[in-house]
Parts: sequence; C-alpha cells; structure tokens
Amino acid sequence: MNYPSRLIEDAVNEISKLPGIGKKSALRLALHLLKSDSSQTENLSKALTDLRTKTTYCKQCHNISDAEFCQICLSRARNQSILCVVQDTRDVLAIENTSQYTGLYHILGGIISPIMGIGPNDLNIESLFERVAGNAEIKEIILALSPTMEGDTTAFYLQKKMKEFDVKITTIARGIPIGGDLEYTDEITLGRSIATRIAYE
Amino acid sequence: MNYPSRLIEDAVNEISKLPGIGKKSALRLALHLLKSDSSQTENLSKALTDLRTKTTYCKQCHNISDAEFCQICLSRARNQSILCVVQDTRDVLAIENTSQYTGLYHILGGIISPIMGIGPNDLNIESLFERVAGNAEIKEIILALSPTMEGDTTAFYLQKKMKEFDVKITTIARGIPIGGDLEYTDEITLGRSIATRIAYE
Repeated sequence: MNYPSRLIEDAVNEISKLPGIGKKSALRLALHLLKSDSSQTENLSKALTDLRTKTTYCKQCHNISDAEFCQICLSRARNQSILCVVQDTRDVLAIENTSQYTGLYHILGGIISPIMGIGPNDLNIESLFERVAGNAEIKEIILALSPTMEGDTTAFYLQKKMKEFDVKITTIARGIPIGGDLEYTDEITLGRSIATRIAYE
Repeated sequence: MNYPSRLIEDAVNEISKLPGIGKKSALRLALHLLKSDSSQTENLSKALTDLRTKTTYCKQCHNISDAEFCQICLSRARNQSILCVVQDTRDVLAIENTSQYTGLYHILGGIISPIMGIGPNDLNIESLFERVAGNAEIKEIILALSPTMEGDTTAFYLQKKMKEFDVKITTIARGIPIGGDLEYTDEITLGRSIATRIAYE
C-alpha cells in the first residue's frame, strides 16, 4: 500500500508488529491518534516506555512487581504451604479473579517448547527447585499449565524433577467446563473427564 | 482487575483507550512488549510521537503529507479536471488501490453528524468551495462518501451548495457488490440497484 506520508508508514509498520494487529487495524489506530488530542499519544508513549524500562520482577515468584517482592509474596495472609506454578502473569490474574486460591505463585515466564527453541534453562525453573528445596513450609505444588502439548511436556518435566522433594504435586482438574454441553465437547476432553471421574462424597 | 504493578495498569489503561481494544487485549499487548526486545517499544513510542507531532497536511487537498503539498496534488500526470471528495485518508488509500481513478482528491476530514456535533464548519468544506471556485480546470466532482445517513446528509449538503458552480457532480455507484448474492442483499440496496439499473451498451 502507498501511504500518504513516511510518518504514517512508520507508525503503521510499528503498530502492526504487535500480535493480532494487521496493517489495516494499525492504520485505523494511527489515524485515530492523529485525530485525537495529542495528550493521548503522549500518555500512551510514556506508559509504554515506562512499562518497558521501569518494570521489575518479584525476586521470589518472578511476577511483575513494583518493588523487590510482590504484594502476594509479601502477604502473610496467604497460605505459605501451597505454590501454584503458572506460565505467566495473565494466569495469576485469571486465578486471582476466581477468589478460590489463597496460596503463593511461581511464574515460569513461558513453557518448554522445542519448536520455539525454549528449554528448561530459559525459564524460571531452577529458581523453583531452589525455592522448594530451601523452604520446608511448602507442602503442595499445583502445576496450573495450559492443557496443550507444550504445557503437558512442561508439567511432565517439572513433575519428574520434583519427585526428589517431599511435596505433593497436583495439577488443576481437566474436564467439561461448567455450562458446557456434553454433545459439543471434544472427544479428548470428554474421554479424559470419564477416565478421571469424581465420586460423589 | 488487580494488576500486579502500577506500570502495567497505566499501560493497560492507555492502550485500551484505542478503538476496538479492550482491557484483555491491552494486557496481552503490554505483556508482549515486556517480553520482546526493548527496541520494539522504543521504536513504537517514537513512531507514535513522531506521527502525532510532525504530521503535516497537504495545503490543497488536506491529505496527510510529508511536505506542503502531497504527492498526488503535485503530480501533473493526474487528471486535473476531476476531484474526488472523501471522508478521510483511508478512503484515498482504498480508491488508490483500485487503480481506477487518476484525478485529484479533497479530504473533508469527517462527515456532517449532528449527533456527534460535527457541522459543515468543522470540516474542510469551505476550502473545497474555494478550490472549485478558483479553478476553472475542474469539470467534475465525485462525492465518494459512505452510504450511511451521515454520508448521505453530507453529500446532499455539498451537492446543494455546489449547484452554483459550473461543474458536474456525481457520486459513486451503489448496488450489489461484485460476487454478492442477490438473495442475501438487503432490500434497500437491492431496491436501489433496480431503480438505478444500467442499460447494456
């Protein structure tokens, strides 16, 4: 496409590097910013630059944090005996929103993916082992990873490596979502939910 | 939602001010930038700031331009006798992509919308009249506005006001899109396409 100016071409190229935004959407966003008050662009640029340059990570759980340790790790109201291992910050937010979990977290920062060239050493796995080894308070580790091939591989790796520690290792339940329809559930999920059926208490 | 840091909250708030991007997508984009090389965020911020602060508009057609006059207005290869009136830059790009038009443009910068409080004086309409009045070379004006209520209102206004000039005023054809199915075309479009039927030559 022939953009009317180099400035707009540069902006479109940079915006469309973001995931899920194509050239057409990028152009729409660029033209929106041009039409809006210039303070909007200023604030956006500043927020992005600050985010990238000033963000720090919690020294214990590796979550994004304003300080050396995050609010969750610092809170003594949280259950110190359970550790929930997740892929990234979004998973922490999703689990926190359920209000069903009061333990601590450990953020891997990704999952093992040979295709993407991501191995155990690229993730916060060594620090997880150190954390579990050095803290007798931890009794259970929940592996809350996505039920994809990479997620399952990572869970399998972690589970095998952590057998040496005296902790219970669990994973979140897989099955038919609440409100889901049996008829439209894929066979693998349905099959697993039958195999791992739960007895009424 | 409880974001893990103020920086990420600010970034999510600013990104989600963009049209069509909600809080969840904004968070995904923010985390993407955090994971990517910092040069990506730098380039994005710079491109947006430059776009907003340095963009200039063509003095003749009001299109976005790198210089005082845009490439289209400067080109003597373009047909100087036709003027295509459009809402904004995106329409120019769309028409240019068809390679069916070789005339000049005039960008209104919006359309008349009483609901949004946009009147004729908020648009580049006066300069259109001046341009047509002051240039005897212009023989035809194509009103290429969207077939919405606002677009039709704007076209009606322009058409009435430009009756005094000695130019032919046309509009782009409305009808069933190429590849469109009669059965699934809405009644108004189908009705108009019958009323404005074209004879085989």
